[in-house]
Amino acid sequence: MNRRPLIALLTDFGLGDQYVASMKGVIGAIAPETRVVDISHAVLPQHVTQAAYLLWSCYRYFPPGTIFVCVVDPGVGTSRKVLCLEAGGYRFLAPDNGLLNMTLESERVSKSVSVENVRYFLKSISPTFQGRDLFAPVAAHLSNGIPAGRLGPRATPSTREGHLLELVSRRGRSYKGAILHIDHFGNIITNFQMKMSLSRFFLLRIGRRIVRKSVRTYMEAAGRTPVALVGSTGLLEISVRNGNAARIVHARIGGRITLSVS
Amino acid sequence: MNRRPLIALLTDFGLGDQYVASMKGVIGAIAPETRVVDISHAVLPQHVTQAAYLLWSCYRYFPPGTIFVCVVDPGVGTSRKVLCLEAGGYRFLAPDNGLLNMTLESERVSKSVSVENVRYFLKSISPTFQGRDLFAPVAAHLSNGIPAGRLGPRATPSTREGHLLELVSRRGRSYKGAILHIDHFGNIITNFQMKMSLSRFFLLRIGRRIVRKSVRTYMEAAGRTPVALVGSTGLLEISVRNGNAARIVHARIGGRITLSVS
Amino acid sequence: MNRRPLIALLTDFGLGDQYVASMKGVIGAIAPETRVVDISHAVLPQHVTQAAYLLWSCYRYFPPGTIFVCVVDPGVGTSRKVLCLEAGGYRFLAPDNGLLNMTLESERVSKSVSVENVRYFLKSISPTFQGRDLFAPVAAHLSNGIPAGRLGPRATPSTREGHLLELVSRRGRSYKGAILHIDHFGNIITNFQMKMSLSRFFLLRIGRRIVRKSVRTYMEAAGRTPVALVGSTGLLEISVRNGNAARIVHARIGGRITLSVS
Repeated sequence: MNRRPLIALLTDFGLGDQYVASMKGVIGAIAPETRVVDISHAVLPQHVTQAAYLLWSCYRYFPPGTIFVCVVDPGVGTSRKVLCLEAGGYRFLAPDNGLLNMTLESERVSKSVSVENVRYFLKSISPTFQGRDLFAPVAAHLSNGIPAGRLGPRATPSTREGHLLELVSRRGRSYKGAILHIDHFGNIITNFQMKMSLSRFFLLRIGRRIVRKSVRTYMEAAGRTPVALVGSTGLLEISVRNGNAARIVHARIGGRITLSVS
Repeated sequence: MNRRPLIALLTDFGLGDQYVASMKGVIGAIAPETRVVDISHAVLPQHVTQAAYLLWSCYRYFPPGTIFVCVVDPGVGTSRKVLCLEAGGYRFLAPDNGLLNMTLESERVSKSVSVENVRYFLKSISPTFQGRDLFAPVAAHLSNGIPAGRLGPRATPSTREGHLLELVSRRGRSYKGAILHIDHFGNIITNFQMKMSLSRFFLLRIGRRIVRKSVRTYMEAAGRTPVALVGSTGLLEISVRNGNAARIVHARIGGRITLSVS
Repeated sequence: MNRRPLIALLTDFGLGDQYVASMKGVIGAIAPETRVVDISHAVLPQHVTQAAYLLWSCYRYFPPGTIFVCVVDPGVGTSRKVLCLEAGGYRFLAPDNGLLNMTLESERVSKSVSVENVRYFLKSISPTFQGRDLFAPVAAHLSNGIPAGRLGPRATPSTREGHLLELVSRRGRSYKGAILHIDHFGNIITNFQMKMSLSRFFLLRIGRRIVRKSVRTYMEAAGRTPVALVGSTGLLEISVRNGNAARIVHARIGGRITLSVS
């Protein structure tokens, strides 16, 4: 029986080049029994907060023990640390740039080290491609059973960036938030975390556009009118039935959004 | 030996978001021995007939027992059924929207149920992402060996849509058909099913363009002239050697096409 | 324990159609224990030299025994040969069109045959999709343990094309080379193979643009100025920090480049 932990990959490398394949080759050479799953390789280049959102939105659906390898790393080759964290029964490898913060918000960190032990790296380390030379071999060794403590000394995340859900600010009955992500369908995903269904009395401003209607499923939306709904990760989304909401309301990642309730 | 049936995924989710990865995480958590293969996640959003074509064009090449999970589902969250069918030694999970009809045309259905047993779903079901909360866990449980009969009561497909190969109509020596798909190379795939090689005496109309030449391999085509050939799934295709036929003749999916033989 | 050799796929098929999935279905049916890794399916259509570069850039990171299946094959269905080569502890299946030459430059070929034994093909061979009907089943049988010698008679590559690293020509202190590849980030990858770090005294011409500065990591580059660096495969690259160098200097694959040292 194959009970090696899964390795899940999240990068901004795209799928057209040899970069992701090189990582999988390295993993296959060190840990031939381990399976690798792609989260996404289409993170916008160097867009750490988009990676933070994508990881947060799916990690809890993976089997306990899964090793998440997140390489969106504008500081590659510099003195920035690479962290290995244990939290929520998972392990996370990522540069110390805030990528993990949104995920760690909901989990207790039980171990956190700086990945420095060259014994678990490839022999030659390119200053521009540590996904292949550091992240992949370290993940493979973790999957083979080495404890995280062997990778290096204790170290904690040095930045508070990436707590995107905290960035909603309130003023009276009005909340200001931002667009976290625009998905493949053009759904606009905001950083408003909805604990319950939307009140009937709300009003959402996105650019010059106002959204007043909320639905539970896409089919309830009429024509090409943007509607609000609680998406599959519990965040407020704006959608257009069988259409591309982001294109229709001219939304972009990072754009501001205001929610008023009455 | 790993003899769990494969799970093959076909969706319109794209590869940029966490959607496909969430499904794979859920499958990995329930059925850690099971392998997952992607058919395509680039079906045009909500384009059920394109999904129908893609499934039909490749399912027979998969190992017996493969579980095909097809999530192109504009009605997600509404009362539309999700079907689990056994046919041709395979199992198919799909919304009841015609997606399976083209495939079922050539196979005898030996079992057909409506997927309703919440025991095999995730505990919390999002009304907008049943790929993760219903399709993935059900497929994983099927792969682990539960019989399809446990998923719910008998039910048969409710629509005849999606029988794309039947839509060719004849008038004298002229046949009217449609463009089923345009592939990555720009090859135009029609719904004319060719039992034999093309007669030497034919004429194909696509928009204002006329195609008179047929070839067996791409290399036989001259210059940038569109030619007809019998493609790898037995359908009539229009191609340009080392070029993009769809761009050259301004073809689009769903466009009409006429074949005249003499 | 799963010790079947990996199969690694490199094609120009894209990921939107059923083509890659058909190959994986065939492999899964013949060799259910074998794992398949994608190198890339985004090679530009029929672009043999780009495929040659991508294979060369990553093959050495894969486990010994890996079977590389490379299908960028404008001559599919014609009398061109399909080769199976053993070199460097790996096996390579590719059309005889130069795709393997860049890789073979650094390896001693220990066996080389023409793949002709129909016993290892699917029963029906489409003249336009041998990826599914020939390459996939042959790779699966190799993975199951048949020796390459059973596939057909000895045959060696018939063309010298694809030796891209040899195409650098020298004139005094000036070297003329070409752009091999532009990656997902817009990094411009040249065919200058750097044995050491860049001398401080160099000058690079690309179109009308002159690049004078070299860096070791992306972070060292200032603003939007293109810089030179030794990339992760040992080739000279031109990059822009957090930007798309190819777009900024209007580079295209195949474009000329001149390196002058002093």
